[in-house]
Amino acid sequence: MHEGLILKITCPDKSGLVAKIANHASKYQANLVELTQFIDRDRETFYARLEIDTGSLEISVDDFIASFEELGREIEADWHFRRLPYRMKTAVLVTKTDHCLNEILWRTGLGEMPIEITSIIGNRDDCREIAENAKIPFHHIEMKKDKEAGFRKIEALLEEQEVQLVVLARFMQIMPEWMCEKYSGKMINIHHSFLPAFIGANPYRQAYERGVKLIGATCHYVTGELDAGPIIEQEVKRVQHHHNVQDLVRLGRDCERSALAKGIRYHVHDRTIVDGRRAIVFPD
Amino acid sequence: MHEGLILKITCPDKSGLVAKIANHASKYQANLVELTQFIDRDRETFYARLEIDTGSLEISVDDFIASFEELGREIEADWHFRRLPYRMKTAVLVTKTDHCLNEILWRTGLGEMPIEITSIIGNRDDCREIAENAKIPFHHIEMKKDKEAGFRKIEALLEEQEVQLVVLARFMQIMPEWMCEKYSGKMINIHHSFLPAFIGANPYRQAYERGVKLIGATCHYVTGELDAGPIIEQEVKRVQHHHNVQDLVRLGRDCERSALAKGIRYHVHDRTIVDGRRAIVFPD
Amino acid sequence: MHEGLILKITCPDKSGLVAKIANHASKYQANLVELTQFIDRDRETFYARLEIDTGSLEISVDDFIASFEELGREIEADWHFRRLPYRMKTAVLVTKTDHCLNEILWRTGLGEMPIEITSIIGNRDDCREIAENAKIPFHHIEMKKDKEAGFRKIEALLEEQEVQLVVLARFMQIMPEWMCEKYSGKMINIHHSFLPAFIGANPYRQAYERGVKLIGATCHYVTGELDAGPIIEQEVKRVQHHHNVQDLVRLGRDCERSALAKGIRYHVHDRTIVDGRRAIVFPD
Amino acid sequence: MHEGLILKITCPDKSGLVAKIANHASKYQANLVELTQFIDRDRETFYARLEIDTGSLEISVDDFIASFEELGREIEADWHFRRLPYRMKTAVLVTKTDHCLNEILWRTGLGEMPIEITSIIGNRDDCREIAENAKIPFHHIEMKKDKEAGFRKIEALLEEQEVQLVVLARFMQIMPEWMCEKYSGKMINIHHSFLPAFIGANPYRQAYERGVKLIGATCHYVTGELDAGPIIEQEVKRVQHHHNVQDLVRLGRDCERSALAKGIRYHVHDRTIVDGRRAIVFPD
Repeated sequence: MHEGLILKITCPDKSGLVAKIANHASKYQANLVELTQFIDRDRETFYARLEIDTGSLEISVDDFIASFEELGREIEADWHFRRLPYRMKTAVLVTKTDHCLNEILWRTGLGEMPIEITSIIGNRDDCREIAENAKIPFHHIEMKKDKEAGFRKIEALLEEQEVQLVVLARFMQIMPEWMCEKYSGKMINIHHSFLPAFIGANPYRQAYERGVKLIGATCHYVTGELDAGPIIEQEVKRVQHHHNVQDLVRLGRDCERSALAKGIRYHVHDRTIVDGRRAIVFPD
Repeated sequence: MHEGLILKITCPDKSGLVAKIANHASKYQANLVELTQFIDRDRETFYARLEIDTGSLEISVDDFIASFEELGREIEADWHFRRLPYRMKTAVLVTKTDHCLNEILWRTGLGEMPIEITSIIGNRDDCREIAENAKIPFHHIEMKKDKEAGFRKIEALLEEQEVQLVVLARFMQIMPEWMCEKYSGKMINIHHSFLPAFIGANPYRQAYERGVKLIGATCHYVTGELDAGPIIEQEVKRVQHHHNVQDLVRLGRDCERSALAKGIRYHVHDRTIVDGRRAIVFPD
Repeated sequence: MHEGLILKITCPDKSGLVAKIANHASKYQANLVELTQFIDRDRETFYARLEIDTGSLEISVDDFIASFEELGREIEADWHFRRLPYRMKTAVLVTKTDHCLNEILWRTGLGEMPIEITSIIGNRDDCREIAENAKIPFHHIEMKKDKEAGFRKIEALLEEQEVQLVVLARFMQIMPEWMCEKYSGKMINIHHSFLPAFIGANPYRQAYERGVKLIGATCHYVTGELDAGPIIEQEVKRVQHHHNVQDLVRLGRDCERSALAKGIRYHVHDRTIVDGRRAIVFPD
Repeated sequence: MHEGLILKITCPDKSGLVAKIANHASKYQANLVELTQFIDRDRETFYARLEIDTGSLEISVDDFIASFEELGREIEADWHFRRLPYRMKTAVLVTKTDHCLNEILWRTGLGEMPIEITSIIGNRDDCREIAENAKIPFHHIEMKKDKEAGFRKIEALLEEQEVQLVVLARFMQIMPEWMCEKYSGKMINIHHSFLPAFIGANPYRQAYERGVKLIGATCHYVTGELDAGPIIEQEVKRVQHHHNVQDLVRLGRDCERSALAKGIRYHVHDRTIVDGRRAIVFPD
């Protein structure tokens, strides 16, 4: 679909919700291309994602969006419209390793991910050349001496560039709580273990020492609690006793870049809804 | 859900279909618990599956089903209602190996599959004991001398028991075309390869000789063309050069029982719709 | 191979070990059918597993085993010979759920696992019928009132039956430390999570609440530390937000029975060597 | 290991082979770091791969290699020594799509694959920029008018650069038989299906039309018979009815780059031995 809307809705579960929502679209000749819904019985909550073709809409798209206001209030919903096509302004934060960054650049180049990378920000200078080859501004923000000042500089950059999504692509710094709050639901991290196993530093060493037969990676929203945010995607890979820590690092890279790429994809296509500590993901 | 309906619909794609269908349910206070839809762009066809809670329905379930007639015709649909709870009358056809049969019995016993096994039918006598332990009638139908007569006897049994689903659980006989037609969309086979590779006899030997690194199994609807019916589920497993044909047979059993169990599960929960040579599967 | 030996060796790593071991076999015309070795660089330790065809051995098998004594001491090895064919005397401990027990019985029946199940022991009576159908003695040992007395009764049974392997097939009791020590390296458990995530009770509920996208099961040797013994095998399965705790239980069963079956298989074929907190596994 | 040898051996199976080979190494104080062997019962053939640390070798590496001659003849072996460290001279042939090329460049850059890419050769000009960014010579060889002349030019380049490995990284031309023969066992292709399913053109379209639930990719040695050479590695990915051909192409890219990267890795680490129509692969 080239022109259209994505609508995400969360509201208390009631009878007749799908009818009401579908009717509203139908009334203005908006065509539902895709509808996915989920009812969380424990929370008595209804979640839905709609792809709407606006090609034959009888009113303007703006008016259609505005017209939803009344229904949205009636059903006590949180809702969000996204106009298609779009490209989400995204900053990628890195430290030293580049495989996740490379993956994002490659998939963006192929048109797989509708994002515009506004900048690549590193607390080290290692990824500068990759950024420059890709013709994307690289900002080296020194953080050793004054971490807080570093984060303030990052924030200023994100503000200035009107960044809508922050991707921590193996950014080896713990985000301060105020940034987690400010970018709540808009900051995605890749952790190099199958969470909740091996939280914190050196997860591959932890995995090696525990002798697990599967290593993994977890893509999740960042919250104030370390490695505990809602999980979007996880990948695992089989390992054996003869794989040392370096092998786990090597094999793990494939989990990391795959889980991160899928996580970003789901987020930018509005296929995720945060539901307390969990993330609802309508995969494609 | 303990009382309710599953509705499957196939019709030409048009704007407003979801609204029309949801409205119809809403009009009688039927609650949509789950709605999954898919639009095939090539065929311009709309497919949907609805789970409907009839607990607060204002009319009788029979009247509700009857009331859909008008809408169904208007949108030129094929549709099907299933009343919940139900158990699908199922015959399992076997020859010698018992792992698929065992899997079905085990999952049925656990309540994972809402089927009632009316009988186990073998062209050999090998599975009699398993059937008897499970307290299910076993019918040994000799087919060596007169294959056609054998199939006629099987048909008579299926008729008599009002069987709705025929499962070929490693039944090593090619079904005659008249039976494929009669049980079109109601006969499921497990083939021991990842189709369309290795059609026909001895797929594990074929796989061994070709030196594949993955073996598999395919659960599909049976049609008149050998191993070419719509695929419901496939499973694969990694193998290595040191696995001989016997190893592939052993490892393949796990693919076979898993793919067959999922295939049956999707079918009996009305999660499949045949779409020409392909099967639409709404997985759970 | 129908007649032969499996030899497992652990010793300090040195140059020429393979030559020495292979020479010893060669000297007596023992044929090496399979040799797998691994050198742990951190521990400077050599591990090997050999399958030896004794068909053309020039001395008796007993003498061959005895003749290894000298070499074993010279290379400061721990070693173990197993005569083939053999069936390992195995007790299966259960509580209520039967899927792991069923899997073991099914694979044993097929000849996949060279074990002789001496008894099935339950702290509840639920699995009695399955045991009786399989013609294996079932012992219900009540543990509610006096847990320690219960374990003493189990120990007495294991002693009496000369059990070599104890399988905890969803046995919902924590083993006392003295039993963990007594059956060190001979007691296998299946835990229903991908350890080290979700140690302890109700791992599927924990997994649901954490919102993981993969659930798993772990087969491990039992040690005094809960769910922390050397891991033999792990399996995972993809889940989604719409799967509730009951769904995770259902889907997890497949991980559990698969991981446990593989773990037992590796153990009884002498494909495992415990290496501190880790298990070396030479898979087949 | 930084200095050493890899030795691959194929010979008729006999008793005492491991002892003879290990002794030979031991005699000159060569240390076996890794030994993997396999006996093909059907062909009565013994295959082995050894990693040898030459750090404490008592003679020169050249003399050690020469000294094997006598043993090699005695056991009627084909054998091959590779000196470590090394980088295999590799040419990458491409047409339009770049994901496989990118993957090779990325892994080579990380040091995962000990290859030196001597040139990237395209029958179209599309991949020139990637090659130039990576500072690797790009040769556009026009093949539309005179295919045979094009292949002769490619051959000349490969000769001139003393290429040891030719990688067809989605090179959309069928190799002429004389090139298949010349580079037998040295030319690797990635086919975008799980062979032997969907041989030839447009495998994703074939897969879509057949309605498979798994798509895949196959890395294999190129032989004169189209897509029928010995398979080194295969990868699959789950797909659903709603994935159209474009989705399969997108999802398949991940299978292709993964299978090709592993295939190359196994080949350049001498972990493959061609065994008739099959490839023995000792994975790492």
